[in-house]
Order: sequence, then C-alpha cells, then structure tokens
Amino acid sequence: MKNSITKNFKFELIHQSSRSKARVGRIHTPHGIIDTPNFVAVGTNATLKALDSHTADELGLQLMFCNTYHLMVQPGAELIKQAGGLHKFLNRKNPIITDSGGFQVFSLAQGDTKDELKSRNNKQNEGSVLKISEEGVLFRSYRDGRMILLTPETSVQAQKDLGADIIIPFDELPPYTISPAKLKQSLDRTHRWEKRSLDEHKRNVNNQAMYAVIHGGVNREMRKESCDYLGNLDFDGYAIGGSLGKNHQELFELLEYVVPALPNDKPNHLLGIGDLNSIEQCVIAGIDTMDCSHPTRAARHGVLFTSQGQLKLLNSSYKQDFGTIDPECECTTCKNYSRAYLQHLFKAKEITAMTLATMHNLHYMIKLMKQLREKILMDLI
Amino acid sequence: MKNSITKNFKFELIHQSSRSKARVGRIHTPHGIIDTPNFVAVGTNATLKALDSHTADELGLQLMFCNTYHLMVQPGAELIKQAGGLHKFLNRKNPIITDSGGFQVFSLAQGDTKDELKSRNNKQNEGSVLKISEEGVLFRSYRDGRMILLTPETSVQAQKDLGADIIIPFDELPPYTISPAKLKQSLDRTHRWEKRSLDEHKRNVNNQAMYAVIHGGVNREMRKESCDYLGNLDFDGYAIGGSLGKNHQELFELLEYVVPALPNDKPNHLLGIGDLNSIEQCVIAGIDTMDCSHPTRAARHGVLFTSQGQLKLLNSSYKQDFGTIDPECECTTCKNYSRAYLQHLFKAKEITAMTLATMHNLHYMIKLMKQLREKILMDLI
Repeated sequence: MKNSITKNFKFELIHQSSRSKARVGRIHTPHGIIDTPNFVAVGTNATLKALDSHTADELGLQLMFCNTYHLMVQPGAELIKQAGGLHKFLNRKNPIITDSGGFQVFSLAQGDTKDELKSRNNKQNEGSVLKISEEGVLFRSYRDGRMILLTPETSVQAQKDLGADIIIPFDELPPYTISPAKLKQSLDRTHRWEKRSLDEHKRNVNNQAMYAVIHGGVNREMRKESCDYLGNLDFDGYAIGGSLGKNHQELFELLEYVVPALPNDKPNHLLGIGDLNSIEQCVIAGIDTMDCSHPTRAARHGVLFTSQGQLKLLNSSYKQDFGTIDPECECTTCKNYSRAYLQHLFKAKEITAMTLATMHNLHYMIKLMKQLREKILMDLI
Repeated sequence: MKNSITKNFKFELIHQSSRSKARVGRIHTPHGIIDTPNFVAVGTNATLKALDSHTADELGLQLMFCNTYHLMVQPGAELIKQAGGLHKFLNRKNPIITDSGGFQVFSLAQGDTKDELKSRNNKQNEGSVLKISEEGVLFRSYRDGRMILLTPETSVQAQKDLGADIIIPFDELPPYTISPAKLKQSLDRTHRWEKRSLDEHKRNVNNQAMYAVIHGGVNREMRKESCDYLGNLDFDGYAIGGSLGKNHQELFELLEYVVPALPNDKPNHLLGIGDLNSIEQCVIAGIDTMDCSHPTRAARHGVLFTSQGQLKLLNSSYKQDFGTIDPECECTTCKNYSRAYLQHLFKAKEITAMTLATMHNLHYMIKLMKQLREKILMDLI
C-alpha cells in the first residue's frame, strides 16, 4: 500500500492475476472506497441522466464522473463551492471524479462531433472557442454569452471549488489525424499544462487526489515519453487520455504498451471507454477504472444489457413479452416490470421508461464489474 | 355502509362534518382502500409522468387515473388484458380508475386544445375523428392510422380488458358554449350511452365498480335531471363531468346544487379538477375524490407546492438558496436536495429534475388530503 501526498487517498493492491495484467485493488478516498476494476458512470451536470444521486448511491455506484466544463457554465463552480462542494450539492455519499474541461473545449474548437456534444443535439449548447494560446483557452459560454478563460490554473481552481475526490489536470486534446511534429508540440504543451496544474493543485491539496492524463495519441514513443515524464511527477494516479485509436484493436494495442509504463503502485483510469465490448479486455490489460456514458445513454434509447446480451426494447418481438428484462437480474426494474410494459413506456415517450432502463443498465454494470473482480481474484482472467 | 352490486366494492361513510357538506369516508376496492376525500393522480399512459408505479405506491398514492383512449391506441387494451390487466401491467398495488375515452375523442372532434392534448405539444398525437353517430364515435389512431370505433359497448369492453377497480360509462362532451336545446340533445344521448354502458358492464361485472357521469353543463335543471336519471340506475358511484363552468365561482355554484342531488350513500368523483385553489372548497362542497394532472404537470415545469405557497424553482432568488423546498416536508426530494440544486437540474434540462419535483408535489397532495380529512373529522371545515 502506497500513501499519496493526499490525506485519505491511497491505492491498495489486493491481487495481481497470474494470467494477465488484470488486478484487484481498492482506492481509499475521503468519501469511501472504490473497488477496482470498476466502471465509472457519467453524471455530466451533477446528476446521472434520469436518475437522482440517492438512487445511484443505493444502487452501489462507487465512482461518478462530473464534467467541469458543463458545471462552470451552469450553475458555476463558485455556486457549488458555496453549496459546500459537489457532494453536498448533489447529496452524493460516494466518491466523485471531475475532469479538467479540456476535452470539451477542444472538442468545441475542432468542431468535433464528440458523443457528448452530439447527444445534446442542440447547436446552441456548443458555444464557441475564441482563442487558444500557451496560457489556455478562451471560450464563450453557450448559456449566457459570458467569456470564460480555461487555463491549468483556472481549471484546477474550479475543481477545487467543486471538491471532487479525484481531479484531473488541464490538457490539450489533439485530433486523431495529426502529423507527428504537431502531436509532439501538443504533447509538450500538455506536459507543461499538467505540470502547471499539479503546481496549482499542490498549493491547496484540499484532500483531493490528482490523476495525470497520459497523452501521445497512437504514437508508441510519445506515449512512452508521456508515461516517463508524468510518472516522475507526484500525481496520485494516471488517466489515459487523448486519441485511443480508431477501433478496439488499436485501443488494446495501445493499452499493452501504455499500462506497463505507468507506475504500478498507483491507480490508473481509462478516459471515456466502457462499452460492453471493451471492458473485459481493458481489465485484462490492467485498467483499474474507466468511465463511459454508453450504458446510461443506451438505456435512454431502450437498449438494455442482459446476461443474454443486449436487448433492444423497441423490437416488435417484445410487444407481448411479459417476462422480465433479465431473469438473472435483481434490480428494481426487473423485480417490478415486464419487457412489454417497458416497450410501451418507450413507445408512449414516457420519461419513466428512461429512469427504469437507466437503473437496470447501471445495476448491470455494477454487477458485471463485481463479477470481473471475482474472476481476477480466482485468476480466471 | 352500503354494499355495491360489485363484490369487494363498498363505500363506508365515516364522518359527516357538522359545519359543511364535507365528509370522511373509505372506499373499499379489490386493490385496497381509498380514504376520502382524496386526490387522484393522472397516469394517462399507465404511468405517472416521470415516476414509476413502485414509487407511487411507496408515496401512498391511493387512486390513480388512467386514460382508456390513450391505452387503446398504445399499447392496446387487448395487450393489457393479456398482461393480466392494468395492475399487473404497470405493477400497481393500489386502486386504479379508468375513464371511457369519451372526453378525449370529443376534445379531438371539437379541435379543442384541452390541456392533455396541448401538453403533448405534438400535432401528430391528435389523430382525427371521422364520424359521430348514435352508435358512437369513429376515429383514426394517431399512432398507426388504424380506425377505432368507440361506443358505450366497446369502451366498456376496453375497460374490462384494462381491469381497473373503477370504470366510467361512455359519454358525450358538449362544449361550454352551447344552446339549451343542443345541450338537452347531448344530455339525452349521454344518458342513453350511459345506460348502454351500464348494461354492458352488468353482463360481466368482473369485480369492477362503475361510476356514472353526471352531465348538464352549467344548466341547473339539466344537472338535476341528470342526477335524477342516473341516480336511479344502479351505478356504484357518481362522477361529475361535462362543462363545470368557466371559473371557480361557477364550479362552486354548480357543486352546491349537484352534490346534494346525488345519492348520499355512494361515493362521488369530480372529473379533472384538483388545482390547489379549488380542492378545499370542493371538499367542503362534499366531493369525495377528484383527479387532476395539475400537480404533476406543475412539478415538471418547476412549480413546487409548499406549506408557504407555490415555489417557482426557476426564480433567480433560489439560485443560491441551499435550503430545502419545504422545511415542513419529509419527502425524499426535501430530505436530500436543495432549491439551488433543483433549479440547476431544471436549468440544465435534466430529467432528474422532473422526477424529483413530481415526487415532492405528489407527496404534498397526499399529505394535504390527509390533513383535510383530519380537519373534517374534527369538524373544523
């Protein structure tokens, strides 16, 4: 067990699989334990979509991801500070992680159709980026037209206001298609920004842990360089960000050389990956936590995860199917409602459909991760 | 206590106020007791909006109103019959009442912008009425273009399929502005339709109770005639429908002469009224139950009911208000979240906002009705 510079934050390695890089651990935070490997649900605006935090706590969701960019714009980080921080604001008992806002502003600057921006399906929500410099990024809020300067320092200050258990340094998001020279420039700037973020963080640790973000796109040498540089700074953990490849194959190749290059005694996190097809292989590659909005978004579109695979609720074959979503599931939705009823709610465009489906998929993810931890403990994967 | 022709259905008068027509009673149904006076929440599509039935049961909602028209169109009454009836379909433990569908098809025919149609805010949901005759109403489903004939017999058959505890005969909905001659024609047809509905019901009582619907618009003589005619048929209760006046004053005048003309030993129901400004006076006029979508709709628009009056959550004064919605409220929303957090959720257009607000307003209504019953028991109103 290695202590962090952050009081109340430590990573405990419980078991290293003899068959793979998969490992079981426990991250201790000021708001309790995160068993690893684990799935991190995304609650962009300080709530999961269609599910309140009381219910998320009851479901056993150990780590929730909130987005600093969105919260700076609405309701503002200062307001959340006044509320006593994110945990008090949304009344969450368990740990929270926030990002730096970098991903969102650069997605905006590139006119990129990132999932989260796409999912809003609302042009006015996109705002605009006015200037990118060594200092940081100046952008205009989509909500009130206010100009916001996001720099390593302001991002960390905002994350201090939010008060999540784990925070992330400000970084640059280069596009997938980029020349090696430009990627190197971006990597160097990201490293300067992450160092500035860490310095800002250390001025007021505030019982928070900071994870670095490893960059370098799909370039093996630059990933290695990023692991070396950031691994020598006293971050509490390591997130893997930037472009992770254009398909699963590239992702898994990348993890094969990135994960072993990370400090083994610190927790790692894979940013924005957590679809069902990737999870087990990421865990086998040694990933401790990963966040993804897919399980909750799929639920809102009527795609439910079951022990028999994905179930598309709107499929006509479920119209008269009065069985539960998944006979092996013990969630509130499965205990109370049938496939036919849920299909009806989706067809009638009832909000209740989204809530019930989200509860189910979240329960599924939590159980899946528990099963993976059990498999690792038995050296089955 | 008077028994109904329906097994397991009876109305028990517990206390008649010495100060007014207000009374406390208990309606016994196959799915449990409805304490009266009580508020009936509207769950048009076999769910309350933004709240699942498990939660509604937990909140203590004793009677829920579902709309036959909507359920015939989606998912179809036959499908709900296959599911074992509405209670099994939506997994509701407590009583349900369904209407006949008449209100919706006539709103459609009149091109009327009834609240419930307006609230869909979606032209394609309105469908079209093709023919009105002595037989009934032929309309085209907005969902699949299918033609549906709604008659006293098909409405009752659909309500048999749905299997609610209380059902309602098919009636005609005349507009507010109508000549006495036309109103009389409509009243006579409604009486013929209600008699046909009752006959159809009695062929297969199916453990359901049937409430008549008193018509006659704002015409005192015709209301009296309707009470006399329908009061002599063996309905299990009496709903007051049709035009109830253009304002509260007209409504209260109408109740003053209609309620005493109803059989005193049977429960009554006021259709579509249940806004906060009317409830106490309706109770004082002797109303036992009343349904209204206002409390749940208001919640979805950020209007919350409190012991201090209505609270408009989007008001800028609540931006930094970290107090609970209502310090006197013990609901899950008030126990867990602040005004500032809920305002944020509404501003961020999060579905969670609607669910939390709906839970609060429903809890408020249930508590309000309990307090009114206590006041009546003490002869305070």
